[in-house]
Amino acid sequence: MNKNSSNIMALAPNTSNKRETVCIFGTGDFGRALGHKLIQSGYPVVFGSRSTQTSSLIPKEAEVLSHAEAAQKAAIIIIAIQRQHYNFLIPLAEILRGKVLVDISNNLKINQYPESNAEYLAQLVPGAKVVKAFNTVSAWALQSGTLDASRQVFVCGDDMEAKQMVMDIVRALGLTPLDQGSLLAAQEIENYPLQLFPMWKFPILLSLGLIAFFFFYCLIRDVIYPYVYENKDYSFFIAISITNRICPILALILLALVYLPGVLAAIIQLYRGTKYRRFPDWLDKWMLCRKQLGLVALAFASLHVLYTLVIPIRSFVRWRISSQTVSQALNNKTEPLDTTNAWLSDSYLALGILGFFLFVLLGITSLPSVSNNVNWREFRFVQSKLGYLTLVLCTAHTMVYGGKWFLSPSSYRWYLPNAYMLSLIIPCTVLVIKFVLIFPCLDKPLTRIRQGWERNPQYSE
Amino acid sequence: MNKNSSNIMALAPNTSNKRETVCIFGTGDFGRALGHKLIQSGYPVVFGSRSTQTSSLIPKEAEVLSHAEAAQKAAIIIIAIQRQHYNFLIPLAEILRGKVLVDISNNLKINQYPESNAEYLAQLVPGAKVVKAFNTVSAWALQSGTLDASRQVFVCGDDMEAKQMVMDIVRALGLTPLDQGSLLAAQEIENYPLQLFPMWKFPILLSLGLIAFFFFYCLIRDVIYPYVYENKDYSFFIAISITNRICPILALILLALVYLPGVLAAIIQLYRGTKYRRFPDWLDKWMLCRKQLGLVALAFASLHVLYTLVIPIRSFVRWRISSQTVSQALNNKTEPLDTTNAWLSDSYLALGILGFFLFVLLGITSLPSVSNNVNWREFRFVQSKLGYLTLVLCTAHTMVYGGKWFLSPSSYRWYLPNAYMLSLIIPCTVLVIKFVLIFPCLDKPLTRIRQGWERNPQYSE
Amino acid sequence: MNKNSSNIMALAPNTSNKRETVCIFGTGDFGRALGHKLIQSGYPVVFGSRSTQTSSLIPKEAEVLSHAEAAQKAAIIIIAIQRQHYNFLIPLAEILRGKVLVDISNNLKINQYPESNAEYLAQLVPGAKVVKAFNTVSAWALQSGTLDASRQVFVCGDDMEAKQMVMDIVRALGLTPLDQGSLLAAQEIENYPLQLFPMWKFPILLSLGLIAFFFFYCLIRDVIYPYVYENKDYSFFIAISITNRICPILALILLALVYLPGVLAAIIQLYRGTKYRRFPDWLDKWMLCRKQLGLVALAFASLHVLYTLVIPIRSFVRWRISSQTVSQALNNKTEPLDTTNAWLSDSYLALGILGFFLFVLLGITSLPSVSNNVNWREFRFVQSKLGYLTLVLCTAHTMVYGGKWFLSPSSYRWYLPNAYMLSLIIPCTVLVIKFVLIFPCLDKPLTRIRQGWERNPQYSE
Repeated sequence: MNKNSSNIMALAPNTSNKRETVCIFGTGDFGRALGHKLIQSGYPVVFGSRSTQTSSLIPKEAEVLSHAEAAQKAAIIIIAIQRQHYNFLIPLAEILRGKVLVDISNNLKINQYPESNAEYLAQLVPGAKVVKAFNTVSAWALQSGTLDASRQVFVCGDDMEAKQMVMDIVRALGLTPLDQGSLLAAQEIENYPLQLFPMWKFPILLSLGLIAFFFFYCLIRDVIYPYVYENKDYSFFIAISITNRICPILALILLALVYLPGVLAAIIQLYRGTKYRRFPDWLDKWMLCRKQLGLVALAFASLHVLYTLVIPIRSFVRWRISSQTVSQALNNKTEPLDTTNAWLSDSYLALGILGFFLFVLLGITSLPSVSNNVNWREFRFVQSKLGYLTLVLCTAHTMVYGGKWFLSPSSYRWYLPNAYMLSLIIPCTVLVIKFVLIFPCLDKPLTRIRQGWERNPQYSE
Repeated sequence: MNKNSSNIMALAPNTSNKRETVCIFGTGDFGRALGHKLIQSGYPVVFGSRSTQTSSLIPKEAEVLSHAEAAQKAAIIIIAIQRQHYNFLIPLAEILRGKVLVDISNNLKINQYPESNAEYLAQLVPGAKVVKAFNTVSAWALQSGTLDASRQVFVCGDDMEAKQMVMDIVRALGLTPLDQGSLLAAQEIENYPLQLFPMWKFPILLSLGLIAFFFFYCLIRDVIYPYVYENKDYSFFIAISITNRICPILALILLALVYLPGVLAAIIQLYRGTKYRRFPDWLDKWMLCRKQLGLVALAFASLHVLYTLVIPIRSFVRWRISSQTVSQALNNKTEPLDTTNAWLSDSYLALGILGFFLFVLLGITSLPSVSNNVNWREFRFVQSKLGYLTLVLCTAHTMVYGGKWFLSPSSYRWYLPNAYMLSLIIPCTVLVIKFVLIFPCLDKPLTRIRQGWERNPQYSE
Repeated sequence: MNKNSSNIMALAPNTSNKRETVCIFGTGDFGRALGHKLIQSGYPVVFGSRSTQTSSLIPKEAEVLSHAEAAQKAAIIIIAIQRQHYNFLIPLAEILRGKVLVDISNNLKINQYPESNAEYLAQLVPGAKVVKAFNTVSAWALQSGTLDASRQVFVCGDDMEAKQMVMDIVRALGLTPLDQGSLLAAQEIENYPLQLFPMWKFPILLSLGLIAFFFFYCLIRDVIYPYVYENKDYSFFIAISITNRICPILALILLALVYLPGVLAAIIQLYRGTKYRRFPDWLDKWMLCRKQLGLVALAFASLHVLYTLVIPIRSFVRWRISSQTVSQALNNKTEPLDTTNAWLSDSYLALGILGFFLFVLLGITSLPSVSNNVNWREFRFVQSKLGYLTLVLCTAHTMVYGGKWFLSPSSYRWYLPNAYMLSLIIPCTVLVIKFVLIFPCLDKPLTRIRQGWERNPQYSE
């Protein structure tokens, strides 16, 4: 039903004359758009306006009356007016008694006012039943009918029956009402359309910082160093080689940062001997954006895979391999197969593939529709067990990548170690702490603390 | 809960004797299947039939009575009979007064009758409470219990209480009821199971047409031309080389066609000076299938990626590289590294990877469960900003692919330019128009028009 | 709204004093966690406990009273006590009359008791309205506020109003209530959190068995055989070469096993001449886990793709190609292009790509949010038509892989055929049977049987 079939219905007006009249206060853009749509869906619409002159913009099927007259014609009144003008409703309080007032307003900033617009409206007109709805839908979307985005309309209100009436209208317009409970939820509903990926800000800023750092680090080692000492122009490394160094490094570091707050929390709980004290704020916030950190890490891992797989198509790589082969042929020598090398190369690739595969699995289970079909035990199994396995595989992949030269001093340039070594610091730390925490002498008290046991109960006050 | 656990419950009959009796009119396949399932879920079932002889096909736990007798035994009557036989209910009108009639019928064609079957039923038996339900579930699925497909049952009706009773039965059978509002929604619900990807028809037909055109175009240039002039058999190019030319071309053209209607709409609105007039029909339809166009484009892009990544494994490519290297060795010369070439090759690959990566992101955000979790502002940010960035990257990728030979006359064969050049026409047009529309002298009036301003208000009548 | 914004609200206590008092029986871990969360959301909380001494663990905003006193203060009582202690409620029956009792208990094993805990509670306190809820949420998740996992709370109960009250509390805590119908659903709800991917057990065990078999099979052929006869150390084949043999074999076999039960069912129905008899149990179970089988097959196919695409990066492959080229150069000969080989190699790759592409499409449509947006006809089209096409393409891919050596005796080692040949047995069987079933002489009676026709109606008793 989410297809656009509902539009077809909406375009067939007057299919029914059973619909109750809806009143709209305000003839602004959203009020008119909603009026149009309601008329298309078979609702008689009456506008309440200061000037009762019919504007050419108002759908001509609708009546335009004074606020008081319009309100008397309908049981449901949609308040398509900005919050600062709500005052004009106070004199109408008597007429609005028992009516359903639908607050559709939005603010310009998150938490702009101490109370939500809908609660403010309920205070101004205490006799009316206020319902919050429609604020997440744009006038443009209503008008054009191209609701590619979410069709969800959050509805909340204290009066069950009033809420039900509004939800029926929402459905009739081809949208999906979502009952969010009492009017207390209005603040949250009003903040919702103002957000722009709030949980993603920290992971993305962190990534940008890390990208900048590692980009210059690799630029120095891989482009500037050979230019200075060997006078070779490797500037084209920027396009693929350096990017393909940065991506896996970021993927690994961010993945480790997903699991770091967990082990930090365990240490804090062990140290405090209780779970009944709040974590520091930064740790709380960090824990809340772990999913986003993980998904950003997955994005970098995917880029790394793509960048790696195109290696054999690169004209530079083809040139290098071909000139090596030609020089071998000219020198008349054939190299024997180095089995150790074959083992290292193959297991490094295999570890990477398995790590990436599990990583993608983790990503899929974090899709809302998948994680909703999974119970708590299954979710923990996937995100914790499989997650740590992914971290272990990816860390091992990076270590084996270095191969025989891992930690060898000859790979230092200007005292700078190879960039991938830096990326191993955090994952190794996390894995070592986690390994220590698995020991029964630490795991047992931790489990008991998480089940509610306290070392020094008096601390919990 | 969407797992098959509900089947386990359903297989445990008689767990309760609290269930109210359900009457089923009609002993056809669906009636019997529903009867079986209801009995399994603990409902006493009585069938209403013309012949009250118990057929061996009817579950033996069920009673079979005449229509009038059966109707008196239950508050809910499921009408498992085809619409053309609904007339027989007219004489029963008195007995059916106040009963809940569940219309489960489907039609053979979309919009077969002027009014939906459920509304027709409500007209025939005005005293009954008609609820539409179960029409999206197949008898086979009910019987076999293997409900891999959607478990959603759309329910609509004018009587809230009746609807609630039916939704409880739906839940008891292990299905998910979805309240679609009043009986007006019945037409849409009845059309739903008859659809076969209606929104996908245009994108898929368009793709097939473009595939045919570009296949023959490439066949002439890449297989027939060398056969005629050089007498070489490159027919095996059909399997991978030519497919890998068609896929990126289609991906780019279809992606550009996603954004073309948007810029056309902007031009129309600017020209008309109002947003309150409908777009031409073809533009409306085009805008409604943009998501599907984009997903088909993504499919072709994914195929292009796979086809590109297998290039180094192809035996032809291995042969070509190896013979080039051998001839270099035999001629005793080593080619130096061409840095310009390395830059072009690497940046072409990098642009492609980044474009594809963003394209996949766009695809993921169009998954229903993801786009439902995103507000309007976020959706616009992703689909518009990131979408245009994808188009820019993919267009640039195609341009750099040509490299030094881009637009060079030497690459023409039989006066036919290379196929990828044709694919650049639409994307470049879209990007140029979009670029022009961003200028403040056009962007400002457009924004005002979209906020409801009109140049010549009298036009809007 | 699924973002963590709801936590922000939850952290703002006392935003309202309208909330009704909630009573919690039991001061265990979950009771306290729920109490904390309720207080944060603005509910006055009173604990009912045997010892009315205020423990430091109990939130200090809450009152602690005897059970009888606490129960009188609230209309809703949450029973945070284990089932075996429910007996103490019997003497309180008079006080609990008309109250809403929320059963939040879980068991240790699936179907531990004959009736669900909630139904047992309803029997013990017949005057109360029992609602099952909250059992799928963990105390830890409630406390930490990091509800990354499912926010769904399954709610069931016989009293509509009581259920509504509990669902409002669920919403106020930032969770999503899901009405599961009457108290009969309690057993299922109680079993839900105890499951660990029940439908995945068979596919995963089967895969492990097949992996073990094919691993040793390939080890013998590819590592031990050359070691014995040619004294070559190919042990590094384990990392990639052998894995990349096992993955496609498992993908193909498991994909064929998805379609095998369907053709077996058709044969059984044709033989019996009716669809009204149950399939054997093993077939029923097999049919229920087809989706999981298919997804495991897709996982192996994806691994196969990754393992194949890294082939040109492997140091062993680079060494082999380079030494072949060098020896060609040293022998001063250039091999001509083998067109047949090029055709075989390219079409084998193309078939694989198309098969994998369709396979991924099948996987995407099995995502819950996608399959819910698809009607029965569309689902059947995708899963049956596209599914068989995938099987045909993958089988053809495997056959062409063998190329000229397919079924040739020279590729036997120790009388063992190449492993991929074994993998073709089941898919070919399925395709041959399916092909036979498509013939009208079998298809027509089968269709009639599936529409309810019976050859020997007396069998159906």
